[in-house]
Amino acid sequence: MDPTVLKNLLERVGKGDLSVEACLERLKNLPFEDLGFACIDHHRGLRRGVPEVIFGAGKTVPDIVEIVERMAAQGENVLVTRLSGEKAGELKARFPEAEYSERAGALTLISAPLEESGKGTIVVMCAGTSDIPVAEEAAVTARFMGNRVETVYDVGVSGLHRVLAHKERLWRASVIVVAAGMEGALPSVVGGLTDKPVIAVPTSVGYGASFGGIAALLGMLNSCAAGVTVVNIDNGFGAGYAAAVINRG
Amino acid sequence: MDPTVLKNLLERVGKGDLSVEACLERLKNLPFEDLGFACIDHHRGLRRGVPEVIFGAGKTVPDIVEIVERMAAQGENVLVTRLSGEKAGELKARFPEAEYSERAGALTLISAPLEESGKGTIVVMCAGTSDIPVAEEAAVTARFMGNRVETVYDVGVSGLHRVLAHKERLWRASVIVVAAGMEGALPSVVGGLTDKPVIAVPTSVGYGASFGGIAALLGMLNSCAAGVTVVNIDNGFGAGYAAAVINRG
Amino acid sequence: MDPTVLKNLLERVGKGDLSVEACLERLKNLPFEDLGFACIDHHRGLRRGVPEVIFGAGKTVPDIVEIVERMAAQGENVLVTRLSGEKAGELKARFPEAEYSERAGALTLISAPLEESGKGTIVVMCAGTSDIPVAEEAAVTARFMGNRVETVYDVGVSGLHRVLAHKERLWRASVIVVAAGMEGALPSVVGGLTDKPVIAVPTSVGYGASFGGIAALLGMLNSCAAGVTVVNIDNGFGAGYAAAVINRG
Amino acid sequence: MDPTVLKNLLERVGKGDLSVEACLERLKNLPFEDLGFACIDHHRGLRRGVPEVIFGAGKTVPDIVEIVERMAAQGENVLVTRLSGEKAGELKARFPEAEYSERAGALTLISAPLEESGKGTIVVMCAGTSDIPVAEEAAVTARFMGNRVETVYDVGVSGLHRVLAHKERLWRASVIVVAAGMEGALPSVVGGLTDKPVIAVPTSVGYGASFGGIAALLGMLNSCAAGVTVVNIDNGFGAGYAAAVINRG
Amino acid sequence: MDPTVLKNLLERVGKGDLSVEACLERLKNLPFEDLGFACIDHHRGLRRGVPEVIFGAGKTVPDIVEIVERMAAQGENVLVTRLSGEKAGELKARFPEAEYSERAGALTLISAPLEESGKGTIVVMCAGTSDIPVAEEAAVTARFMGNRVETVYDVGVSGLHRVLAHKERLWRASVIVVAAGMEGALPSVVGGLTDKPVIAVPTSVGYGASFGGIAALLGMLNSCAAGVTVVNIDNGFGAGYAAAVINRG
Amino acid sequence: MDPTVLKNLLERVGKGDLSVEACLERLKNLPFEDLGFACIDHHRGLRRGVPEVIFGAGKTVPDIVEIVERMAAQGENVLVTRLSGEKAGELKARFPEAEYSERAGALTLISAPLEESGKGTIVVMCAGTSDIPVAEEAAVTARFMGNRVETVYDVGVSGLHRVLAHKERLWRASVIVVAAGMEGALPSVVGGLTDKPVIAVPTSVGYGASFGGIAALLGMLNSCAAGVTVVNIDNGFGAGYAAAVINRG
Amino acid sequence: MDPTVLKNLLERVGKGDLSVEACLERLKNLPFEDLGFACIDHHRGLRRGVPEVIFGAGKTVPDIVEIVERMAAQGENVLVTRLSGEKAGELKARFPEAEYSERAGALTLISAPLEESGKGTIVVMCAGTSDIPVAEEAAVTARFMGNRVETVYDVGVSGLHRVLAHKERLWRASVIVVAAGMEGALPSVVGGLTDKPVIAVPTSVGYGASFGGIAALLGMLNSCAAGVTVVNIDNGFGAGYAAAVINRG
Amino acid sequence: MDPTVLKNLLERVGKGDLSVEACLERLKNLPFEDLGFACIDHHRGLRRGVPEVIFGAGKTVPDIVEIVERMAAQGENVLVTRLSGEKAGELKARFPEAEYSERAGALTLISAPLEESGKGTIVVMCAGTSDIPVAEEAAVTARFMGNRVETVYDVGVSGLHRVLAHKERLWRASVIVVAAGMEGALPSVVGGLTDKPVIAVPTSVGYGASFGGIAALLGMLNSCAAGVTVVNIDNGFGAGYAAAVINRG
Repeated sequence: MDPTVLKNLLERVGKGDLSVEACLERLKNLPFEDLGFACIDHHRGLRRGVPEVIFGAGKTVPDIVEIVERMAAQGENVLVTRLSGEKAGELKARFPEAEYSERAGALTLISAPLEESGKGTIVVMCAGTSDIPVAEEAAVTARFMGNRVETVYDVGVSGLHRVLAHKERLWRASVIVVAAGMEGALPSVVGGLTDKPVIAVPTSVGYGASFGGIAALLGMLNSCAAGVTVVNIDNGFGAGYAAAVINRG
Repeated sequence: MDPTVLKNLLERVGKGDLSVEACLERLKNLPFEDLGFACIDHHRGLRRGVPEVIFGAGKTVPDIVEIVERMAAQGENVLVTRLSGEKAGELKARFPEAEYSERAGALTLISAPLEESGKGTIVVMCAGTSDIPVAEEAAVTARFMGNRVETVYDVGVSGLHRVLAHKERLWRASVIVVAAGMEGALPSVVGGLTDKPVIAVPTSVGYGASFGGIAALLGMLNSCAAGVTVVNIDNGFGAGYAAAVINRG
Repeated sequence: MDPTVLKNLLERVGKGDLSVEACLERLKNLPFEDLGFACIDHHRGLRRGVPEVIFGAGKTVPDIVEIVERMAAQGENVLVTRLSGEKAGELKARFPEAEYSERAGALTLISAPLEESGKGTIVVMCAGTSDIPVAEEAAVTARFMGNRVETVYDVGVSGLHRVLAHKERLWRASVIVVAAGMEGALPSVVGGLTDKPVIAVPTSVGYGASFGGIAALLGMLNSCAAGVTVVNIDNGFGAGYAAAVINRG
Repeated sequence: MDPTVLKNLLERVGKGDLSVEACLERLKNLPFEDLGFACIDHHRGLRRGVPEVIFGAGKTVPDIVEIVERMAAQGENVLVTRLSGEKAGELKARFPEAEYSERAGALTLISAPLEESGKGTIVVMCAGTSDIPVAEEAAVTARFMGNRVETVYDVGVSGLHRVLAHKERLWRASVIVVAAGMEGALPSVVGGLTDKPVIAVPTSVGYGASFGGIAALLGMLNSCAAGVTVVNIDNGFGAGYAAAVINRG
Repeated sequence: MDPTVLKNLLERVGKGDLSVEACLERLKNLPFEDLGFACIDHHRGLRRGVPEVIFGAGKTVPDIVEIVERMAAQGENVLVTRLSGEKAGELKARFPEAEYSERAGALTLISAPLEESGKGTIVVMCAGTSDIPVAEEAAVTARFMGNRVETVYDVGVSGLHRVLAHKERLWRASVIVVAAGMEGALPSVVGGLTDKPVIAVPTSVGYGASFGGIAALLGMLNSCAAGVTVVNIDNGFGAGYAAAVINRG
Repeated sequence: MDPTVLKNLLERVGKGDLSVEACLERLKNLPFEDLGFACIDHHRGLRRGVPEVIFGAGKTVPDIVEIVERMAAQGENVLVTRLSGEKAGELKARFPEAEYSERAGALTLISAPLEESGKGTIVVMCAGTSDIPVAEEAAVTARFMGNRVETVYDVGVSGLHRVLAHKERLWRASVIVVAAGMEGALPSVVGGLTDKPVIAVPTSVGYGASFGGIAALLGMLNSCAAGVTVVNIDNGFGAGYAAAVINRG
Repeated sequence: MDPTVLKNLLERVGKGDLSVEACLERLKNLPFEDLGFACIDHHRGLRRGVPEVIFGAGKTVPDIVEIVERMAAQGENVLVTRLSGEKAGELKARFPEAEYSERAGALTLISAPLEESGKGTIVVMCAGTSDIPVAEEAAVTARFMGNRVETVYDVGVSGLHRVLAHKERLWRASVIVVAAGMEGALPSVVGGLTDKPVIAVPTSVGYGASFGGIAALLGMLNSCAAGVTVVNIDNGFGAGYAAAVINRG
Repeated sequence: MDPTVLKNLLERVGKGDLSVEACLERLKNLPFEDLGFACIDHHRGLRRGVPEVIFGAGKTVPDIVEIVERMAAQGENVLVTRLSGEKAGELKARFPEAEYSERAGALTLISAPLEESGKGTIVVMCAGTSDIPVAEEAAVTARFMGNRVETVYDVGVSGLHRVLAHKERLWRASVIVVAAGMEGALPSVVGGLTDKPVIAVPTSVGYGASFGGIAALLGMLNSCAAGVTVVNIDNGFGAGYAAAVINRG
């Protein structure tokens, strides 16, 4: 509810233009949802700087164009995730200043320059090269939300030295996102090397009994390293978002 | 590796007591694991203040007593989780100053007074009264790790007003832990009301197609609210630990 | 069994043209199934006004055309569900007066004008825009069965104010159909806000651990709100049909 | 929010005792949750006559006694479900006027005489004698909510004549609850014989590949009979509740 | 429907005591279920000699006693399956002439001497000694239904010579029942050695990834040997019954 | 082993051309597999008249042509299952006298006229029109193996009268094959109406929680009608084969 | 088949006491299984030194005593696995010289002194102290089969330094058995540190989404380290046995 | 870490060019990962002769070309697995001397002639012709790693004589790889015939309840033959690699 509406009502009561009973009635009938909105607006206010995100999968290009136009018209930054290269091409024809990360499958359109607001660096790791798209989605999301992000890719647990080589980077990180498919063991190893929040993202990379990411998901949920939390399979966006929320703290 | 060992070696080289080749040989043969330990020790140092935690399930009372005694002898605080009331009784007979939370199934023995080191308040919520043991495990763990914790219990999504009644508390929180069984929908609702990190804990509460917590687990992994991460079923300890790690940031 | 056949038999007995024994024998040998049909016909009679529905998936266009022609010839209204736009195009070339809802994937051919026979309004809700096809299938089905239907779309539980904004509509409803994918939490929230029958439809919307609708299905079966019943994944038709049956009461 | 509080505020504005700005501030700070409560209270009012239900499983006898006493003190009727015979004995010692159904595992304490408020008869069926406890829970619940209930037990689909023998009863029913374990086929058969709402309850009766009710649950979700909706495994209470809600319509 | 009722009606029509219309009305209203019963009775007649079977699990001893008494009073043979030794003891105290097979968990009470009516010999095999109870249930059932049964136990596929040693017996058999747990491979091997109907019974024997018989069940359903059909996990009764039905042919 | 080889050896021993020791050595070294073959050949002999069957899925047309040619050259009848219409076209170009059933996806090439060797009639039923391909595969297979087959299609359990209409046919049958998708309840109903062997074939027909035939499979495994056995999902061939084996008895 | 039988037959042919045809007939009728046995006996001979193993679970003490007595009478060494302490006590009363490992749940009775026949050392590792029983079963089995075994316990991947501390031992090993529950990641890490065969044993240790060892099993099957093979959940015996077979090579 | 770096440091300490403290500092800061690399390099050295393997699935041809070029430039042998025929064609255009196995989907480029280093023969078996691609992947991998490989294809357990025909070959083998789909019973049978290590590879061959290889996987994990270990579904590479590692021993 627009506070000015409420203010006007009260002023009219103060002036005697509106009886207490009539005002009471008006307030009673004020749609709950408007108060809801007001509440949410206030809430939104607290969230200032959190840009809108469009889940591109399953939306048509015209749909996406319309949403992006509306947002861009208000000077908002835009992030579109799960966007195929083909759709991205059409969008870039319309918004030439947009940038598309093929690896992340994500397009960003920045009107208001991003400023680093996170309190530290978010490190995004992945176990194999096939996990990179999910990791990149996390990285793009976190950067879009105003964070400094470093990426460490292709450091599977069967080659421990590659993990250990980045130990200091892990110690300096504020939050760590770890994407892994197959057996999904990397978050356990990383979690044991650091005392920072670790967000594990199972990926659907693998075959046979990986069951499209279930093996990795179960591995991460059962991690023997305390402090590891998990998001949905292939949910790079969710991991990057959660990391940004934590890094804001 | 104890740095003094290394220092001694080098001093002997500097003094000519030890040839470069001999020293090289010694260094080569220095067990990798010792360097590993050194590294870990350093790491441990960074973690100072993180007390040891004993997983009580499946351990005998004598086993637990022995570990607690060793730790207490060094002035460390002790947390034992998944401890039955019966075992707790035996432990309290031995350590009268220990405190046991029946609801959490957790025993704490505090030698060094806990000081609040977390940067904000951790709010621990649960959906139904049956979820309280899991929520309490999270709360006890987070408090033990130096955090101020507030609990909000029995606020299921089928009675939204009970959730909404705690909205401001949610906004003031630093991190929120949400335990829920059955359909596990509370984290989605809470995640939509706040911009703080939400750690969801599925509980095994329910019957029939809840499948011992699988329904809640899947619900939480598929949460439509960004920023929600998930731990294992009934893993109150893991949720409290992760919340403490985040709150330290 | 055609009653006239039975009547003729009895008349012949009455006239003495057929002995009791011979008639008895004939009746004994009257195929059970004919009596069955009679019974069903009578039963059908009770259902008068319930039009035939054709499940379009897996049927060829010629098959569907044949069934529709036969039904239309008898002045029956026709509903074809799970019909692709391509097939719909071919059908509309043959039945120009048919109407096709692309969102619902449903085609209707109305010979006898629909009259609202339901006792109240059926509200069809869905959580996200991707759930709309399933919700529309429910809405089209319920309307086709003579019900007034209102739709409320895109009201996910992570934005509670959007749900609450429609609270009064929920209170005025006679039956509520709620379609949701991902964690499927909306029926629990709606069920807690109303005392009307709620039919939950899990949708296959989601990815990763949504497992094609299993997460939503389990969430709904475990709903903490009493009075919620569930139909199969993506079964908008079933939900609309059940809502219509309830609304007839 | 208590309307009188709001009224007082407005009166003070009208009287000039409170400035518009100060009132605005007060209103802004009025806890959302209070408005929520008001809303819920109003909602509760609409539900008047719906008695409280206590889920007995996992609650101690003292817990249940306390809740029952509080409710009985206010003249409310009480239903306790999932109550073992042992606990029921203790409760009856305290509330001698309570009635316990061993088969349903449910205890009722009726202060205000139940009056039949449902618009028709609810028929509760089950397939085998082992399904009776679940069916009885549904029947007790529906009766407790003011409905006339008829029960038809032990009518499995492998003996069709037993089902057919009750056809007319099915036609006269207002709502039908069908509990079945094993392959859970009875709701499909019943659904094909009637045009009334059918609520299917899978039971955990069976062995081997019945998987504690999963086979029956899947069978019911995939019912070829339109108009069948499903509740959780063994959830007789939920089925009876939903039937009562539908029968109120 | 009692034929005499129908006959009376017709006679009254023949005599002119009942008009054709009135009789028609009466016939219309003749309850469907009565015809159903008649039909079933006739069907029962065809089944003459098929004795009643009582599923003992979950029934109390008094319940079983009552059923057995009623059956024995009519001279029927009785088979009680899934009966614990303890319950069997109580039953034998009441029916001293009953025989109890501890291995099969089955009790038989033979009033009318069993006569071998099957057209050939049923061979019941099992893979390991732990599968014997399930195999024995099949054997007892088949014998009870009038079949000559030979048993071949402990012939797992990892010791092929043990299987091959019984090859000629397999060739002489009329029907073969094969019970196996763990990987459930025996039916495939047996099916490849014979051209007789093979009924496979997965048992819940095994641990870990045998998942209570699922591994064996899947193995049998996917048997590379044509002609193998499968019953539920541990369903020795069903296998013996089906074998008897086939052997009757 | 070719018996003539063995005969020659023995003759040479009889003639003194080969010493006992040398023959013993030769026999010892006779490859076990040859004896195996001999055994199998004898076994094959017992099976005379059982034609070869080619699983067409995953084989190339040239592969199939080669096998068919080899078999046809020996005057054997050929059945190719799981054959797409396209492949069938190519095969018919090569073998013009072959017959292809599009519904069954099966091609037969009959050199030696089929003669009915089964002892009775096999009835093949299915629940819905979408189950017909699986049912037809069973029917084609059973006919190919020398059986008289009757088919009864589209008799789902939600329209019981359609099932009951075929009751007498069921009573006259020797073996009954029942294919059904969705909840797979038809075999239970059929099994309750007859005392003949019933082979249930779950089909992958359905959507959502039918999980590609798992719901039907579980329903059939848990059938409350004794005497029902089950084959793999969509395994019409296996059902037809098993029915033929039983009908041979 | 006893070779002397064959020799006698041939001698009689050589002497003319038996015609070629009669001998041929005898040979044809020689039971296949006897040849099978002969073959197996020969095979057994190759395995000399492989002692019998008794799976104790589900066997009664008298059963086990009987088997052990029979074996001991022939001087064979005996291994009984899955033996509870209680049963072990009874067995030791009968066989005082037997040794029981409580941790492994295994009893050994050594008549012929074990000699180390394996070509190298088998290293048995486990991730947590709760995995020790499974690891010990593997170790006891491998030792019983004549292998030198070293054990390395409690080296979870969240404390990498503990794993790395044993690197050289891993390099010296001939075969490595790795038991782990929870996420089952240790085999991947070990597999990456060595080029020796690694046998992974998932244990049922864990809770919640560990699903009794499924998470660990899937993790191991999806190991990113080549050369890792897997046995059933908790199958320490199988792992020790396979390691012994490999070490014999 | 390059040992010369360490040597230089020490020499400078010996010469007094570097103080003990400064050297200590340098050593402290020597990246752990470098030591790690050194260790790994040494480890690599032990593995000399183990060629690199490229997982072709999901990699673009240019990616693969680049990796192959880099490896070939160093004289290394190359194996590319999971390579489609189309991609293989492009690679062969670039590397004409490469060889592609269509059945295995594997390409090899041999610069240094392979020499047989394995201690015995690896036998690779499969149950059906559809399992050949997986078996071939195992065979190609094992040969590439310097092993003599024999293949035995199409020996399903429903035709035991085909398995038995290869018994002697199994006895002569050093390691046996067994690929099988459907019920996956072949490894159990083979394991019972031999005392050699058996590596079982479940394949995704089958339909219906084979669930893409799960049935075979479970069958193999539950094998009643000791000494059988299992790899992931369709993981021919892993089986061949593990067999080679064992054969090296």
